[in-house]
Amino acid sequence: MMSDRVAIVGAGMSKFGELWDKSLIDITLEAGMYSIFDSGVSGSEIDGLVVGNMSAGRFTGQEHLGAMAVDMGGLGSIPSYSVEAGCASGGAAVRQAYMAIKSGEHDVVLVLGCEKMSDVSQTEAMNTISVAGDWENEGMFGATFPALYAFMARRHMMEYGTTEEHLAKVTVKNHANAAHNQWAQFQRPVPLEVVMRSGLIADPIRVLHSSPVTDGAAGLVLCREDLAKKYTDTPVYVESSEQSSDTLALHNRKSITQMDAVIRSTRSSLKEAKLTINDIDVFELHDSFTIGEIILTEDVGIAKKGEGGKALDEGITEIGGKFPVNTSGGLKARGHPVGATGVAQIVELVLQLRGDAEKRQVDGAEKAMAVNIGGTGATSIVHILGR
Amino acid sequence: MMSDRVAIVGAGMSKFGELWDKSLIDITLEAGMYSIFDSGVSGSEIDGLVVGNMSAGRFTGQEHLGAMAVDMGGLGSIPSYSVEAGCASGGAAVRQAYMAIKSGEHDVVLVLGCEKMSDVSQTEAMNTISVAGDWENEGMFGATFPALYAFMARRHMMEYGTTEEHLAKVTVKNHANAAHNQWAQFQRPVPLEVVMRSGLIADPIRVLHSSPVTDGAAGLVLCREDLAKKYTDTPVYVESSEQSSDTLALHNRKSITQMDAVIRSTRSSLKEAKLTINDIDVFELHDSFTIGEIILTEDVGIAKKGEGGKALDEGITEIGGKFPVNTSGGLKARGHPVGATGVAQIVELVLQLRGDAEKRQVDGAEKAMAVNIGGTGATSIVHILGR
Repeated sequence: MMSDRVAIVGAGMSKFGELWDKSLIDITLEAGMYSIFDSGVSGSEIDGLVVGNMSAGRFTGQEHLGAMAVDMGGLGSIPSYSVEAGCASGGAAVRQAYMAIKSGEHDVVLVLGCEKMSDVSQTEAMNTISVAGDWENEGMFGATFPALYAFMARRHMMEYGTTEEHLAKVTVKNHANAAHNQWAQFQRPVPLEVVMRSGLIADPIRVLHSSPVTDGAAGLVLCREDLAKKYTDTPVYVESSEQSSDTLALHNRKSITQMDAVIRSTRSSLKEAKLTINDIDVFELHDSFTIGEIILTEDVGIAKKGEGGKALDEGITEIGGKFPVNTSGGLKARGHPVGATGVAQIVELVLQLRGDAEKRQVDGAEKAMAVNIGGTGATSIVHILGR
Repeated sequence: MMSDRVAIVGAGMSKFGELWDKSLIDITLEAGMYSIFDSGVSGSEIDGLVVGNMSAGRFTGQEHLGAMAVDMGGLGSIPSYSVEAGCASGGAAVRQAYMAIKSGEHDVVLVLGCEKMSDVSQTEAMNTISVAGDWENEGMFGATFPALYAFMARRHMMEYGTTEEHLAKVTVKNHANAAHNQWAQFQRPVPLEVVMRSGLIADPIRVLHSSPVTDGAAGLVLCREDLAKKYTDTPVYVESSEQSSDTLALHNRKSITQMDAVIRSTRSSLKEAKLTINDIDVFELHDSFTIGEIILTEDVGIAKKGEGGKALDEGITEIGGKFPVNTSGGLKARGHPVGATGVAQIVELVLQLRGDAEKRQVDGAEKAMAVNIGGTGATSIVHILGR
C-alpha cells in the first residue's frame, strides 16, 4: 500500500566520541536497539533497513553493512543496503527510507547512520574524508576540507566583513548547547577567548572551528502514516524531503560564499511543505566548520546574504532566539561521524518536536528543518519535520 | 505523481575489460551516455541519479560518486547518491530507482553501475572484494571468496555428485555466449579441456571457474509507465523487484549448497509478478564462480535440488534450451566489475526482451529474470522484467 505521508516513530543514538572499546557494528546495533526500543515497534515488524555510511571500507575494512546489520541485529532476512553521498550519507539514507515507504514497497523501515573514524591514523582519516571532495582535483593536491573551507571563510570575510570572532561564536554557542546533550562528544562549554587562541589549521580556520573525528551511530524508525498511531502518541511527520547537487569541486562554483544546492533544496522543501522559513522553529544545519553554519544560516534564509555573522551577534540562532540552530551541539560539539550525522540531526529534531529535549528544549517547537551537506556543498539534503 | 509500474526505456554499457586508459568517471559517463542516447530521453528530463558501486573509495580513492557523475555528466543539479550492497550494489541501485519512481518523488531516473578494479594490485583487489564478506570472521583469516565458494562446491559435489566437469561446463557455455557479445571482456569460446586444466586456486575451483577482475559500467533509464511510450515503442517493464538477506558469514548458514536469500527473493518476485518459473524465458544468474550458477539454477527452480549439474549435461540452460542462463556471457565471460554487474544483467535482459540481442537472441523472449547476489549470498536481489 502506498503511503502519502511518512512518520518517524522511533529515534535513538549511540554516544558520540572516540569509542576505542567499541567496533563499528557495536555502535550501529546500539543505535538500532535504542531507536527500536524508543519506537515500540517489534523487530519482526521492520521490513527494511537502510544504512547511511560514507567509507567503512576504508575506515574499518568492512562493506556490505546492510546485510551485516540485518544479520548481527537479528532482523531476519529483510532487504537492506547502504547509501553514500559523502557527509550527506545519513540524510540520503533517511530520504531513501522515506521513498521506500512512499512507494508502497515497505511499511516500517529502520535507518542506521554510522561511522567509526578513530581506528585509522589522523592522516588516513583526513585522506578518507577527502574522497568526498574531488580527489583528483582537490584532495590529491593537498586541498583538504579545512583548506577548502578556509577559502570560503576568507572570501566571506572579505566580501561581508565576517570576523574571526564570528567563526568562534558558532563554536561557543554549539558547545553551550552540547553541554546539555548526553550523547554529545564534547559536553562542556568553551569560552570565546579559548576558541580564538586555538591552533591555526588553515588560516583563518582554527582547530576549534572544526568538527572532530568521531565514532558514532544514530537510528530512526520510519513508517506509513496510518501505522504511526499504533506505536506512539507523539509521531513526527516528514513534511518534505528534498535534495540537490552542485559541482563536486569548489573551484567550479560561481560563488564560494554560498551553497547553491542548499538554496535550491531549502526552497523546494519549504514549497513542498507549504511553509515559509518563519514557520520553522528549530534547525540542525551542517556545521562541519563554523563558517559552514554561518553560510547555511544565510542560504536557508535565517539571515540575509552576508549577515550570518550579525545573526550570531544578535543571538537569534541561540536557544531562546528566533531561529535556534544546532541545539544538539551540531557537528562541532555533538561530533561528526560522517555517515551518522544526517541521521543524528533528525534524531535531535524528533526530540525537539516531542518536547523531550530537556535543558536544550525549544519551547513549543512544531516545525523543524535539517540541512545535511556532502563535501563543500556538492550534495544538500533538506528534511522538514512537523508534529 | 505516484506510478504503479516502472518502465525501462534506455540501456547501455561501456566495454568490460581491463581498461588501463580510462578512469572510473570515463567509463561511468560512457555507460550513461549510451543509455541516455538509447532512451531518447533528453538530459534535462532526468530528475534523479542512482549510482551502484561497491568500493570506489578503496579501488580509486573517490567517493561521493553521485554528485561527481551529476557534475561531470552535465546533469544540472539533480539529486544523486550511491548504493552499496556488496556485489549486489548494481541490483540494489536499480531497486532504489524503481522505488524512487513508484514513490512519486522522481519521474525519470538514470541508474549507473560502475567499478574500476584494475588500478590496484591483485592482492588489494582481493582484499577489497573480501570486505563484502565478513571481514573479521572470514577475510582476515584468509577465507577469500574463491576459498568460500570452494567450500560450497566441495559440499555440492559430496552431497549431489556434482563433478569438476559440471563446474567447467558453465564456463564453456558462458564463454560461447560472450563470443557474440561485443561488450564482454572475453569474446572467445574456451574448450572444456582447457578449463579443466586451468590453474587450481582453491580446490576444486580453478582460475577458469572464476569471474575476472574487470573495469566496467552499465546504465539504465527508468521512468513512470505513463511516460514510457513517449520515448520508445519497445518499453520493458519491471514486473517485480524483490530483495532478501542472509547471514553475512557462510559458516552461519544451515546449508552451504543453497542460498536461502535467493530462494526467498525468487519466490516473492514470481508471486508479485503473478508468474511461475516456467513463464520466464531468459535468465541472468550471478555466476561469480561457476558453482554459483549451478546453485542458483537450483535455487530459482530451473533445476531440482542437486540437479544443477544434470541441467548443464542436458543443455537446458544454453541458448535454445528451455531456460537459457547468462546469454550475455555472465560474470564469468562478460566480466564482473562488482558495482556494475547487477545493472549489466538488466541491460542484457532489456536487449533480449526487445529482440535486439543479435546472435545470442532467445527467440520470442517475453519475460526475463535477473538474480544479483552480494557476498556468498548475504544479499539477493531479483528483478523480473516483461515486455
